[in-house]
Amino acid sequence: MHPSLKGMKLAVLGGDARELVLMRELAAEGAMISASCLPPDCRLDGVVAGSEPGACVAGAEAVILPVPGVNEQGRLHCTYTAEPILLTEEIVARIPQKAPVFVGIARPLLVSMTAKRGLRLVELMEMDETAILNSIPSAEGAVQMAMEMMPVTLHGSIAFVLGFGRTGMTLARVLHALGAVTRVVARNPAQLARSYEMGLLPLSFAEMPQHLKAADVIFNTVPALVLTREILQAVPPEAIIIDLASSPGGTDFPAAAAMGVRAVLAPGLPGKVAPQTAGKILARVIKRLLLEQKDGGQTSAF
Amino acid sequence: MHPSLKGMKLAVLGGDARELVLMRELAAEGAMISASCLPPDCRLDGVVAGSEPGACVAGAEAVILPVPGVNEQGRLHCTYTAEPILLTEEIVARIPQKAPVFVGIARPLLVSMTAKRGLRLVELMEMDETAILNSIPSAEGAVQMAMEMMPVTLHGSIAFVLGFGRTGMTLARVLHALGAVTRVVARNPAQLARSYEMGLLPLSFAEMPQHLKAADVIFNTVPALVLTREILQAVPPEAIIIDLASSPGGTDFPAAAAMGVRAVLAPGLPGKVAPQTAGKILARVIKRLLLEQKDGGQTSAF
Repeated sequence: MHPSLKGMKLAVLGGDARELVLMRELAAEGAMISASCLPPDCRLDGVVAGSEPGACVAGAEAVILPVPGVNEQGRLHCTYTAEPILLTEEIVARIPQKAPVFVGIARPLLVSMTAKRGLRLVELMEMDETAILNSIPSAEGAVQMAMEMMPVTLHGSIAFVLGFGRTGMTLARVLHALGAVTRVVARNPAQLARSYEMGLLPLSFAEMPQHLKAADVIFNTVPALVLTREILQAVPPEAIIIDLASSPGGTDFPAAAAMGVRAVLAPGLPGKVAPQTAGKILARVIKRLLLEQKDGGQTSAF
Repeated sequence: MHPSLKGMKLAVLGGDARELVLMRELAAEGAMISASCLPPDCRLDGVVAGSEPGACVAGAEAVILPVPGVNEQGRLHCTYTAEPILLTEEIVARIPQKAPVFVGIARPLLVSMTAKRGLRLVELMEMDETAILNSIPSAEGAVQMAMEMMPVTLHGSIAFVLGFGRTGMTLARVLHALGAVTRVVARNPAQLARSYEMGLLPLSFAEMPQHLKAADVIFNTVPALVLTREILQAVPPEAIIIDLASSPGGTDFPAAAAMGVRAVLAPGLPGKVAPQTAGKILARVIKRLLLEQKDGGQTSAF
């Protein structure tokens, strides 16, 4: 039998387009969802909407918060309501002890509120599994931006990928498949070995500057200042830089602008370029975690 | 020694961004180019600009016309001059007998004018070599459009490619490499066999309708009405259609609009999404043909 969430009670507070997809996917697996808000005129089978957050979480087997969670004032991220919805101590107190609380990124306020009640907080974006799945829309979004900005095809162009972590590996594989001459710059010898195995052209950061003059496009995934003013001097003015590292990125943007090199910071691409895919990724990971909780067994969720 | 065009006299009449790249590339090989027009303040090494067309072609060893050639009134395609430049009988009469005349697409007027003088007219866009090279920017442009229009990634989506000719094969390979489930629809059994060899999922046109309900995106490359009103009824309303066949395409666009299926006609993508690459492709093919003419030998030009 296909694993299922039949009869499982879930609460979803706040959210955006991703949570709509998430709710549809989980409801299709049989979950009974209580949502604090939906867009006007939006009806989803298996989803009861409009209860106040305290009523939503009462009796829930799991609570799903929006990807950005709550801000420093405790306001829940929600694109469907004009008036702010706050996650108060009283609401958190009504979450059953055994119910995990899912969130994309947890700010300190949320961490302390849930810790005080002894609740299990699951930071989805910190998980390898989510990060690898999200690297797919990130890489496609980066490729789309490069295609829009460049007067030449990626095929036959010389592309640099800085960093060979979860996003760097996906992006380098896609560029190579499109026919770009793909150079991977990394510190870790195991990552350089893997990039070589994949038919890519590995470089250390020390070797990078002498090769940059041939670059058509440079993608950065390293969350540290790697494209410094000094290194940018080796970048030809017609090359472009697409920085995927979380803000403030790994590029000296003012220096790039002064040198006439086009450089853009592009974090959070999955929710922007492929919100449905981003929602399905959340649904897939949460479903797997809920099934583990329910049956104690392991499932691939693919 | 690297093959070279040293000292070869070429005439370039009219043109757009592609011909600028073409001239730069051929001049870099040593050709001496006489151009009828350049953008204001544009100077290219090895290119003498501003002569009237009759003077340009006199003594030329080859004449290069713009990709769209001349219109039905004999006007040369040129994006740099406001006043029309005509290709007259008098100008054609000054083209040396042995000089080939290169053009992208030849309209009947140009065919008859050159035939009357016994000149060799080379239609570059009709050549397999050019069409295969142009399929690279066409496929990238189609992928870029799909990424921009779809709320999901191409990775994991179900993509149909109708036609497995020069463009269809390139596009299907790229989609497969990006992780799309790629179905190829073709008539020719040899093409279906090749698509199977490439790991794609071949279908005949008769089998297509029953599978279309799963489509996320449909790319057409067949220059005939293949997506008829009847067949479009099998396409889900959230799917998109990108038609790459030359105008009017292979889609019943009014029927698609009436059914709420987004369908776009996207011919001529190379010059739009990657003008530099399109110019380099012209330069590569023309260089190869000129070297054959000069040395009688074969060169790959890669």
